Amino acid sequence: MKIIINPQRSTWPELVNRPQQSPEELENIVLQVFEDIKLNGDAALLKYTEIFDKVSINSVLVDPAELKNSDLAVAQDLQDALRLAKGNIEKFHASQVQNKGRIETSKGVVCWRENRAIEKVGIYIPGGTAPLLSTVLMLGIPAKLAGCKEIVLCTPPGKNGKINSAILFAAKLTGITSVYKVGGIQAIGALTFGTESIPRVDKIFGPGNQYVTASKLMAQRNGTAIDMPAGPSELLIIGDKSGVPEFIAADILSQAEHGEDSQVIFLSDNEQLILDVIKALHIQLAELPRKDIANAALKNSKAILLKDIHECLEFSNLYAPEHLILAIENPYTMIDGICNAGSVFLGNYSCESAGDYASGTNHTLPTNGYARTYSGVSLDSFVKKITFQEISKEGLQNIGPAIELMAAEEQLTGHKNAVSIRLKTLSYV
Amino acid sequence: MKIIINPQRSTWPELVNRPQQSPEELENIVLQVFEDIKLNGDAALLKYTEIFDKVSINSVLVDPAELKNSDLAVAQDLQDALRLAKGNIEKFHASQVQNKGRIETSKGVVCWRENRAIEKVGIYIPGGTAPLLSTVLMLGIPAKLAGCKEIVLCTPPGKNGKINSAILFAAKLTGITSVYKVGGIQAIGALTFGTESIPRVDKIFGPGNQYVTASKLMAQRNGTAIDMPAGPSELLIIGDKSGVPEFIAADILSQAEHGEDSQVIFLSDNEQLILDVIKALHIQLAELPRKDIANAALKNSKAILLKDIHECLEFSNLYAPEHLILAIENPYTMIDGICNAGSVFLGNYSCESAGDYASGTNHTLPTNGYARTYSGVSLDSFVKKITFQEISKEGLQNIGPAIELMAAEEQLTGHKNAVSIRLKTLSYV
Repeated sequence: MKIIINPQRSTWPELVNRPQQSPEELENIVLQVFEDIKLNGDAALLKYTEIFDKVSINSVLVDPAELKNSDLAVAQDLQDALRLAKGNIEKFHASQVQNKGRIETSKGVVCWRENRAIEKVGIYIPGGTAPLLSTVLMLGIPAKLAGCKEIVLCTPPGKNGKINSAILFAAKLTGITSVYKVGGIQAIGALTFGTESIPRVDKIFGPGNQYVTASKLMAQRNGTAIDMPAGPSELLIIGDKSGVPEFIAADILSQAEHGEDSQVIFLSDNEQLILDVIKALHIQLAELPRKDIANAALKNSKAILLKDIHECLEFSNLYAPEHLILAIENPYTMIDGICNAGSVFLGNYSCESAGDYASGTNHTLPTNGYARTYSGVSLDSFVKKITFQEISKEGLQNIGPAIELMAAEEQLTGHKNAVSIRLKTLSYV
Repeated sequence: MKIIINPQRSTWPELVNRPQQSPEELENIVLQVFEDIKLNGDAALLKYTEIFDKVSINSVLVDPAELKNSDLAVAQDLQDALRLAKGNIEKFHASQVQNKGRIETSKGVVCWRENRAIEKVGIYIPGGTAPLLSTVLMLGIPAKLAGCKEIVLCTPPGKNGKINSAILFAAKLTGITSVYKVGGIQAIGALTFGTESIPRVDKIFGPGNQYVTASKLMAQRNGTAIDMPAGPSELLIIGDKSGVPEFIAADILSQAEHGEDSQVIFLSDNEQLILDVIKALHIQLAELPRKDIANAALKNSKAILLKDIHECLEFSNLYAPEHLILAIENPYTMIDGICNAGSVFLGNYSCESAGDYASGTNHTLPTNGYARTYSGVSLDSFVKKITFQEISKEGLQNIGPAIELMAAEEQLTGHKNAVSIRLKTLSYV
């Protein structure tokens, strides 16, 4: 972890720069796989599963019986943990339901919005060494709450041609009934075009490596919506003298172990805290199973001493972190000043892990500076908000003349006529 | 307008197909202009304004005095009309502010969301024959309500090198203080990269032709957010025996006059109504100033007789129209069945024009079937929703063990440690 002491403000833009991602470079391979899936459907999926995942399967569909019996293979305490997490995620996302808010804007003119679920959604869960069961909850629960009619989950098979039981159990727990053993480019392609087994969906959610990211961008160009542009995970911590070095070091490592391209920025107004955190970091790192990954990630990471906590906040807003931990004495005084962040953790006991798994907030969050413009996944991500208006005769008499004038100015006589022809019938009454 | 009587269900997917858009074909020209702007800034903007808009200007900035005095050039009744529309749009969008919704998900675990404005937004208003002053209101008002710090408006200059006064007045009315005389690809490029005069923005809003659409997609690939993918405007009307043929014909024409690529679909369970509408259409079309455009658009348009109103609704959901007019006896009975639409107009007096200008709803809506996944522009489009969580010692004791189990299953020991190290200090208390 690089230590930087009181950097000049002119260097900030460089300090907040992320390593460049270039998903465009993968465009050719993605295009090729997508074209193949469009033409050959399931056969192409099986072929690429053999090529990319090095495993031969006969069908991408997970046997419904296997899904149903998944709890038999999952320890009771883990089941209970998932149920606790589910309860909290459900409570928080259910609180995001907005009422219709009927408003009479002029007398006789009533406007409101209603939520409608996106009908078919696809959830992608990456494979690899660890089964990301938490992400199944984070995407499946709001999809169910929103009322999506078809919720489809794709995840690559393991070497044994099967899906991890805990993933299946998490899917079952959230009420997902269609799980497919397919990953990477071919999974996103299947969700984009549909195959004999896998339905085409309206929107694709979920994390993944650079191939998955490039595939989601290609899906978007083919008219399928995606949750958000994705990049490597990141954490920014602001700590003052009240910060606990061991806690902060543990938080830094929890982020760094994600991947070699993960990034942590630790800001403080207290040089001693920085030194103590670095010390604790070395001690904890030595014991970490994924220490090689974490070590590589720490090379991209920085501890920066700044003048005061307000300067730290300014720097954080410029960086726009996915996760922001405020390990400071009175975090509430800083909330109003936070402009750009995905999810914020207040005080010494609100560790990022809590939001990653079980506090109730969503862990699918904007990375790579996208927190400047994008929100994390929420119930909103699974619905459209349709506007409605009902205009009575009196209402049209109240706003019609204004519409006629504006339409005339825009030289859209047809727009004007649609009002005039109605007003004319009313003047006869 | 093509009349189709009771089409087979198997033909529906073809009937709801839009004419293909291929913004990718314009990629080369867009790339070239973008590169030039990145290198040469304002000089490139002036050059392309001369090439594409055939007008030579010295500066893209609209003189602040011109903006300030714009009301002198706008008739009083039009000013009043814009003020009425502004009042309604403001009321409806202000009603979209969501409260924080603090939720205690487990004892000691509190989660909530807070809105933060997107800092810098760019509004694009197309040029052409008609000044789209209504779009200035539709984008400027929610941007102001959201609290965006910098709101920039770009619109191409007219042949006299100036911007229409009514556009400037609408900008002034909504509180926009920076207006630039630049249109098309070069405007979107300037907002994406910034130039000496024009600031780089975080998100670009607004309609435009295929060049603007292609440019916005390119902006998105360069990390700038956009409001939504755009296509030609569309209207679907469902009418039963209570529908007024003259009103429906006027609504069809108000849509058809937008552009040759506009599309209208009129569905009814009543053959006589269809015949009466077509008759009224011919009478009204003859008088329309933009009849050539409307006539071309009507060639892409269809009147379809279906079995009953429920079948009409099913067809509409498959089409996912930008605008949906329900000219039926009891539109309220159909609301729950509407799955996919941008904005809905209930009854004989709720014409699309009302929503285009002054009812209060936003007229920036998803086209081309995107209503399946996207909402129209609203206050939400100008903010991010940041999640917050505060976990007390007791809270972490309640959810910590579940987090430890889930993190262990995901083989993310660092995530587990961040909880364990905190819980350990608590067990000493």
